[in-house]
Amino acid sequence: MTDPLVLFMPSGKRGRFPVGTPVLDAARQLGVYVESVCGGRGICGRCQIEVQEGHFAKHKITSAGDHISPPGAKELRYADKRELKPGRRLSCSATIQGDLVVDVPQDAIVNAQVVRKAAATRPIERHPAVHLCYVEVDEPDMMKPLGDLDRLKVVLSRDWGYERLDTDFALLTGVQKVLRDGGWTATAAIHRDADTDTARIIGLWPGLKNEAYGIACDIGSTTIAMHLVSLLSGRILASSGLPNPQIRFGEDLMSRVSYVMMNADGAGAMTRAVREAVNELIGKVCTEASVNRQDILDLVFVGNPVMHHLFLGIDPTELGGAPFALATSGAVHLAAAEIGIAVHPGARVYVLPCIAGHVGADAAAATLSEGPHRQDRMMLLVDVGTNAEIVLGNRHRVVACSSPTGPAFEGAEISGGQRAAPGAIERVRIDPATLEPRYRVIGVEQWSDEPGFAEAASGIGVTGICGSGIIEVIAEMFLAGIITADGVIDGALAARSRRIVASGRTFSYVLTDSEPKITITQNDVRAIQLAKAALYAGVKLLMGKQGVDHVDCIRLAGAFGSYIDPKYAMVLGLIPDCDLAEVKAVGNAAGDGALMALLNRNHRRQIEETVRGIDKIETALEPDFQRFFVDAMAMPNKRDPFPRLAAAVSLPAPREPATTEVGGRRRRRAR
Amino acid sequence: MTDPLVLFMPSGKRGRFPVGTPVLDAARQLGVYVESVCGGRGICGRCQIEVQEGHFAKHKITSAGDHISPPGAKELRYADKRELKPGRRLSCSATIQGDLVVDVPQDAIVNAQVVRKAAATRPIERHPAVHLCYVEVDEPDMMKPLGDLDRLKVVLSRDWGYERLDTDFALLTGVQKVLRDGGWTATAAIHRDADTDTARIIGLWPGLKNEAYGIACDIGSTTIAMHLVSLLSGRILASSGLPNPQIRFGEDLMSRVSYVMMNADGAGAMTRAVREAVNELIGKVCTEASVNRQDILDLVFVGNPVMHHLFLGIDPTELGGAPFALATSGAVHLAAAEIGIAVHPGARVYVLPCIAGHVGADAAAATLSEGPHRQDRMMLLVDVGTNAEIVLGNRHRVVACSSPTGPAFEGAEISGGQRAAPGAIERVRIDPATLEPRYRVIGVEQWSDEPGFAEAASGIGVTGICGSGIIEVIAEMFLAGIITADGVIDGALAARSRRIVASGRTFSYVLTDSEPKITITQNDVRAIQLAKAALYAGVKLLMGKQGVDHVDCIRLAGAFGSYIDPKYAMVLGLIPDCDLAEVKAVGNAAGDGALMALLNRNHRRQIEETVRGIDKIETALEPDFQRFFVDAMAMPNKRDPFPRLAAAVSLPAPREPATTEVGGRRRRRAR
Repeated sequence: MTDPLVLFMPSGKRGRFPVGTPVLDAARQLGVYVESVCGGRGICGRCQIEVQEGHFAKHKITSAGDHISPPGAKELRYADKRELKPGRRLSCSATIQGDLVVDVPQDAIVNAQVVRKAAATRPIERHPAVHLCYVEVDEPDMMKPLGDLDRLKVVLSRDWGYERLDTDFALLTGVQKVLRDGGWTATAAIHRDADTDTARIIGLWPGLKNEAYGIACDIGSTTIAMHLVSLLSGRILASSGLPNPQIRFGEDLMSRVSYVMMNADGAGAMTRAVREAVNELIGKVCTEASVNRQDILDLVFVGNPVMHHLFLGIDPTELGGAPFALATSGAVHLAAAEIGIAVHPGARVYVLPCIAGHVGADAAAATLSEGPHRQDRMMLLVDVGTNAEIVLGNRHRVVACSSPTGPAFEGAEISGGQRAAPGAIERVRIDPATLEPRYRVIGVEQWSDEPGFAEAASGIGVTGICGSGIIEVIAEMFLAGIITADGVIDGALAARSRRIVASGRTFSYVLTDSEPKITITQNDVRAIQLAKAALYAGVKLLMGKQGVDHVDCIRLAGAFGSYIDPKYAMVLGLIPDCDLAEVKAVGNAAGDGALMALLNRNHRRQIEETVRGIDKIETALEPDFQRFFVDAMAMPNKRDPFPRLAAAVSLPAPREPATTEVGGRRRRRAR
Repeated sequence: MTDPLVLFMPSGKRGRFPVGTPVLDAARQLGVYVESVCGGRGICGRCQIEVQEGHFAKHKITSAGDHISPPGAKELRYADKRELKPGRRLSCSATIQGDLVVDVPQDAIVNAQVVRKAAATRPIERHPAVHLCYVEVDEPDMMKPLGDLDRLKVVLSRDWGYERLDTDFALLTGVQKVLRDGGWTATAAIHRDADTDTARIIGLWPGLKNEAYGIACDIGSTTIAMHLVSLLSGRILASSGLPNPQIRFGEDLMSRVSYVMMNADGAGAMTRAVREAVNELIGKVCTEASVNRQDILDLVFVGNPVMHHLFLGIDPTELGGAPFALATSGAVHLAAAEIGIAVHPGARVYVLPCIAGHVGADAAAATLSEGPHRQDRMMLLVDVGTNAEIVLGNRHRVVACSSPTGPAFEGAEISGGQRAAPGAIERVRIDPATLEPRYRVIGVEQWSDEPGFAEAASGIGVTGICGSGIIEVIAEMFLAGIITADGVIDGALAARSRRIVASGRTFSYVLTDSEPKITITQNDVRAIQLAKAALYAGVKLLMGKQGVDHVDCIRLAGAFGSYIDPKYAMVLGLIPDCDLAEVKAVGNAAGDGALMALLNRNHRRQIEETVRGIDKIETALEPDFQRFFVDAMAMPNKRDPFPRLAAAVSLPAPREPATTEVGGRRRRRAR
């Protein structure tokens, strides 16, 4: 008779095991990560599973199925003391009696709360770099004078299989007290990250310690976003953000690098500022979740190269000019204490690798999260900021570059532009017949032409237009024929609509009537054209490297990507032609990638390998870039057809050049 | 035709290599450690060897032999710029042309200056844990945006074979400047200690760095002794010592442990004191050798368990009572900065393992140095202090214990006792006929009965008697018949000599006539008897464990061992019967062992393994110990014959019990 077959979900790993094998042992043998702090003593409750028999009927703890052992004394005692949800079993106690499907509950939820997003939640299979091990240590014996730490290591080897363990030196001074306080029981936190077999004791508590936490943090130029996670359940306990206080040294990346070049302790001041903010944010998420920050044992950080360097205390000056040399591109491992992060003294920090001088650990994390390298389809992943970080690829090959979009998409350099905040126009529609606009304002539920808008907006005011609003208004102006494919506001329309007004030697579109009057000027249109052309040219370059003329799917990462409507982005030609249903905003994909790396150390190895294999394209060195850029100034693009967009949106027909100058004089614009 | 045979000395490793193979490559392939900083570029000059041809004629650099290539351009340029001693070649440049014997110069000399000693010097084959690697790093390349550190690692892998390199985080903030300052050349210090293949960059300098230093330090209860060594040549550059400032908290170990128990910050205060002293001593040896302490990259420390714990900042209270539990018995690895040792910020510290709660890292180091486990003969290794640490064994088995000798051997508890210092009597002879003494005083060249003694001694004075003097005077009193084998000063002799005087109810021997009168009292004899009985009983116990009735050789470690005359030690019965020629003082064997561990990381693995294998005997748990102790009160011993001693020294014949009380009344003393 063959041994029963056991299938573990969601990993799909399977194997045959003799009747009587504890499910936890089977999981271990197959390399399925099932948490267990107490090592099978039935006291930590961390090794819970859900069991289905071969015929897929849910097994209840109260009714013993044929294929799994009935609850034993350990399990009943645990269920009695701590509660065990229906259908849950302790895998250290339950033994295999027949074919089984075992669900390892994956409580981690990615794509969560930090920014608005539409993407589906999905579980992350856990395999954290830090693991708690409960042990019962032999008492000191004069006949065998092994030290306290050495006897601890003996049992960590015997019960947990750790053969070569380093120890944080700081633990040595406390080991005597911990073991005695715990009555010769203790819980050790083991950190094992590297692909070698070396592991390290980083924490030690008397008795059973049944909780450990981790931090996943994306340090953006504008916002620092953070998740607090239970390393044992994988659950996100709190998510929050804070403005990056480095903003006071410069709005965008290059102005911060300039600040470093101009000021003796510029880098130091910015390093201190961001570390303080990270500490403050850790305090915030810990308070929210009632977690002691001393119980945080592992932290993962991502950020663009300048943020990465400043956070680590590395001078970013080299990133300010060619050849944009990173101090380190590989993943960085360190102790949290080395950079003044106030958590458990033994806590470890992992920083994802950077892809290139302008394509940072944030892009690596977004790649890990969205996984172009895990699929056959050609995926375009774009994170728009002052620099757009662009990744294009599939399982065969991934290429990446950055493109200098500038800050226009963030509302800078736009006459009525502002950050996304209450009072900012975020959605715009223009009636092609009347050229009259309607819009929505952040903080107001109604559209501007709906009843109640004036009352609702009166408290907030309509103060400006944010990035997504700019994209929409310009795209709508294009769709309504107010601007030509070349981006010229057609002065001839001034005769048809009071919205088109002369403004110096060019024309503007008046979006709002109330004060402050928000107007879209010819310069605003130019600024957006320059930004979108830079982005598109970068994408085009990568498509050329991949030898494709379209992409299968597009992922828009970052806050900007979450707010813009993919349709308008494509109408403007920010992104290449693609089935609109395959264009998705994925929110803080960098933060999600950080979370994955926090919860599963295999993801760290995977993304390090992926990043090593990425073909890094430097746009400044590519002769085609300038040509692509010029072509991309037109909407959606001068040379590329957009058949998939055209199928969904009625694009204006090509037409005569528009009236470009005040006075109605027509001239042919130079191409 | 077979390839030439190359034999490397002193290791004896040999192999055949194709004609034209650089000698350095041959050494590498055989695992012979030849230093090289520049990796074969002919600029560091560290890979020097001496070459003999098959017929053993010294090869001179000026005359090209048949079996080795003539000096090439690199070598001639080096010889021209830096000087190359006659007979020396650069092994990176010289290639094999025929059979060769290659001497790898081993400049390290053990058994050096710290304490007086007679043992021969001997070379230590070098293989330090820290290695300097000169590299030429690729400049940053926009096409291949690897970080500075990553390109450094690429070349460390390519040129030096380091595949998996961790990096001290602190280096990350400096890597950009170092590489640019060095014009894309740099020297990295790599630390590889563990038996895994993991190595770590701990230091980085621009250009060629051609020197690195190490510290070997023995932290004794009384004295801290230190060697400063070049890690590249193995040469000892300075050796020095300082009193252990913990003496102000308590003279001996147990009084220091008591201080910790009684005072809230007692351990902290002693930890700070010893670390300050170590820092001061490092300053002293560095000044002496004109070395910058920032260039010290590796440090090895040894000490008894209490010193070991206090130096590492571990509370030693547990060592003050059964079961004498060590916080850690294994070797300890840490960064020097973690314990406030002010050397290079990346410097590493290695602390040898402790054998048991009273047999410390100093005994482990002495074992490494003297090597009972490396030979067939049964070696007894004794380090006498307040506790005697005793090791007995050969390559088949090693056993160890400690025995509570107390401070008598150090001059404490002795009426005229003092530390070894100018004015202390260190040598004594007694004329068996007249019972008149002659003696030598530290700081005076003449014996007391030689012309000029009075003048020479007048400046210093004769202030007391030190440990070696006590041993000798009591042994001489026994040989002269003044005391019996049972240790009784024979009052009957008062009739024959004015040196024997009544002193309370017992008798004393008057050693000096000048003031202060130095007298050996019955209590003094008893104190030495108790101390020597404890030591001998420990030795006897170990001999029993080994099943031997005598030992083949004896090594007396420590300052005390260096000063006492082995003959008198054996006459008293401190040590068991042994061929006197096989009894040697080996000085600071613990310091020598530390030096070996500093210069060759293989010695670290070797002693760790040896210590794990040692059978640790706890005297307090051994039923025989008390009986052995009582027997050992007699001189040399009540039950054990001393045939080898008797062959060299005329021992007094057994005789009637002596007059024990003032007034000449004889009584039979209780046995």
